[in-house]
Amino acid sequence: VSPPKELAEICKVSTSADDLANYGKDWSMNYAANPSAIVFPETIEEVQKLVLWARKTKTSLVPSGGRTGLSGAATATSKEVVVSFEKMNKILGFEPVDRTLTVQAGVVTEAVHKYAEELGQFFPVDFAAKGSSQIGGNVATNVGGVRVLRYGSMRSWVSGLTVVTGAGDILKLNKDLVKNATGYDLKNLFVGSEGTLGLVVEVDLKLTTAPKNTTVLVLGMESLGSAPSIFKTFRNKLNLSACEFFSEIALKKVLALHNLSRPFESETPFYLLLEVEHQADDISESLFPVFEECCEAGWVSDGVISQSATQAQSLWNLREFISESLSPESPYKNDISVKVSQVAAFSRELESTFKKDYSNFQVVLFGHIGDGNVHVNILKPNAMEKSEFIAICHEADKTLFAIVEKYEGAVSAEHGVGLLKKEALHFSRSAPEIELMKTIKRAFDPDGILNPGKVFDA
Amino acid sequence: VSPPKELAEICKVSTSADDLANYGKDWSMNYAANPSAIVFPETIEEVQKLVLWARKTKTSLVPSGGRTGLSGAATATSKEVVVSFEKMNKILGFEPVDRTLTVQAGVVTEAVHKYAEELGQFFPVDFAAKGSSQIGGNVATNVGGVRVLRYGSMRSWVSGLTVVTGAGDILKLNKDLVKNATGYDLKNLFVGSEGTLGLVVEVDLKLTTAPKNTTVLVLGMESLGSAPSIFKTFRNKLNLSACEFFSEIALKKVLALHNLSRPFESETPFYLLLEVEHQADDISESLFPVFEECCEAGWVSDGVISQSATQAQSLWNLREFISESLSPESPYKNDISVKVSQVAAFSRELESTFKKDYSNFQVVLFGHIGDGNVHVNILKPNAMEKSEFIAICHEADKTLFAIVEKYEGAVSAEHGVGLLKKEALHFSRSAPEIELMKTIKRAFDPDGILNPGKVFDA
Repeated sequence: VSPPKELAEICKVSTSADDLANYGKDWSMNYAANPSAIVFPETIEEVQKLVLWARKTKTSLVPSGGRTGLSGAATATSKEVVVSFEKMNKILGFEPVDRTLTVQAGVVTEAVHKYAEELGQFFPVDFAAKGSSQIGGNVATNVGGVRVLRYGSMRSWVSGLTVVTGAGDILKLNKDLVKNATGYDLKNLFVGSEGTLGLVVEVDLKLTTAPKNTTVLVLGMESLGSAPSIFKTFRNKLNLSACEFFSEIALKKVLALHNLSRPFESETPFYLLLEVEHQADDISESLFPVFEECCEAGWVSDGVISQSATQAQSLWNLREFISESLSPESPYKNDISVKVSQVAAFSRELESTFKKDYSNFQVVLFGHIGDGNVHVNILKPNAMEKSEFIAICHEADKTLFAIVEKYEGAVSAEHGVGLLKKEALHFSRSAPEIELMKTIKRAFDPDGILNPGKVFDA
Repeated sequence: VSPPKELAEICKVSTSADDLANYGKDWSMNYAANPSAIVFPETIEEVQKLVLWARKTKTSLVPSGGRTGLSGAATATSKEVVVSFEKMNKILGFEPVDRTLTVQAGVVTEAVHKYAEELGQFFPVDFAAKGSSQIGGNVATNVGGVRVLRYGSMRSWVSGLTVVTGAGDILKLNKDLVKNATGYDLKNLFVGSEGTLGLVVEVDLKLTTAPKNTTVLVLGMESLGSAPSIFKTFRNKLNLSACEFFSEIALKKVLALHNLSRPFESETPFYLLLEVEHQADDISESLFPVFEECCEAGWVSDGVISQSATQAQSLWNLREFISESLSPESPYKNDISVKVSQVAAFSRELESTFKKDYSNFQVVLFGHIGDGNVHVNILKPNAMEKSEFIAICHEADKTLFAIVEKYEGAVSAEHGVGLLKKEALHFSRSAPEIELMKTIKRAFDPDGILNPGKVFDA
């Protein structure tokens, strides 16, 4: 199949079978790639021309960054044209007074980390897919990760955004201003809009100062119910930069696959990993009393405090290797969030409901408890066919999402809605809210050409 | 005039001349109060009934908080019904794990400061009108103030918002979630929307830990052009929590009216006030080298470092008393912002243009230079009639705003658009952006009953 001649006049186009298969999907499963062409614009003007061509020809466009998304937002399943940003991968400049790094949408996240480090600065948005994910996609998903507790999500680090709307207008939003009280905040509307309102082409990123010293603790808990008290105690007295949790089941999976040792000898049903940022080289004096307070209150039954950067990393590995360690068991994943104060109650209700209704399923919980984010992983029983397992999990989702709704949580915490969660959106957003989103979508994308069918059916 | 019977059945109504005059205006000047009635709802349901009544009767509503706004956003000039939130003034509760304080819209800002302090917590949004302004108004204006450099504006501290839209729907936005990737961010769309999309009825506020120690410096500069370098040097090496500037002209006005002494003996054309946050009691060891670096580079010609909390407050007074000290000279004020890196060049161009075109005007510049916010005050020449002065200033605005546009700045930094800046909105927002705002307005407020004529004419 050769691409339309008009399209080839705008920028590089590919319709090779390999490219169609590769650029038509992201890291999410169960969506078959089926794009009609892949385009590779190199300038904002080319992106604008693509949008105007798509409007004229009623062609749907799917924006494509590093395609590391887990909700199918960057998949092309219905003959869409995929707009890859990989040729718009330049770091455009750093302004040291504003501490602003301006980049094209296709710059890889890790390239920003490295560039910032060379400048003696720090870009704090950090997550597993950083080696492949692109800044434009990070904006579209409002990416989260392990540093949200301390630094907020992507939204907090975007001070300006250039986008091409579905109408073909180039908007320069907020222009790197710190204070701006001139009407509605369209910048934040774009962050997390998953490519449905416009195509992100340039981004102003704020950098900051890297933390000087960090110390990591892993604490054992008999009950997840102790986590909120421990979190609160550390957060109120120290500069807490991460608070993660995982279960003994999750730890066992990690230890079985990696050459790591237990954080301490005793086994406990749940573990909390805490990271504390500090100015002084040695923090023992202020850390020990807080640790002891948590032990004396009966919240913590055992624990370890990192004595070196190497040990800190080893402790982090116990948490970071979980996802990979579960892979062999084909986990069915959900990424949800509730208020931090509700994580323990929510998790308890989830576990007891699944124990009752789905007794043959093993449910592994872990996540960023300090920002209310729980990764729910259901492991496939060995004896069960994969298709049957997925079908039952889809059914079980309704049970899970109803509990999320009861706790006023989000059916997607940091992975977005895409195709995967759009039927579940109503568990977290009310009918009037969804109608308003659709009206906003039509305002920015009057012909419905941008990533149609993602987030909701417009 | 007696209020419509249906209105009186919803909640308390007043049509007394005093109330009409009082509730019909805010702190901005030049707008004559002319509301038809003032209503005082006490519950969300009453607010919803008011909106539905307004839709039915095609009555315009003006939301009213502490009415400390400076852009006329809370003025009722055309027989609107003013919705006062002063009876919705309850602090509803504090959740210590989430560190979330839930308040009704009519709670006064300073009451939040005091409540937070009693809890051992800190609410960092701080500005001159805090004794009267209300939380709902702070949200509607996305209020800024002196701590934005360190803590961000109001937006950063709102984790959940309950609003009644112009359609009469009650929306619970973001529900105090830290991570939420379920579609468009309507919460941030409401922050700064100046009552044109919906009425804010309840707010979830995040609290934090109060700074332990702060030290204040005032530095003298021969040129404002040194400010960015000083700012950058301090910000990169210390935990800078405020960076304010003022001119010798502004300082002279303050000293003439208040019993304060100069920060140091020598006079310099410009001054920078820096506040540094620190953990250790004594910060001399890390502060002196940075101060010396700035002196050796020739950026700073003299300076003083606070040795006590009392002295720190005295130095802050030099900056905080400026506005009040200018009052007797009927200043014509503009509140604008540019990128931090552009403040010096912008200010120079502004001063030289005014010296050329309006040589009889004295222009006093001061503001939050660390977040690019410049307060431009033009003083009325003694010999000039006030009406002539205002007329010339309105003309001069076009010159000022054209310079703002050239530097890609905001014609309103933190005071909002309201009535005052709506004709100037196009200097900061493009035509497609303004059209998109109007479409969004119609989606939330289909009958155009909410604060019509504010921000733009829909």
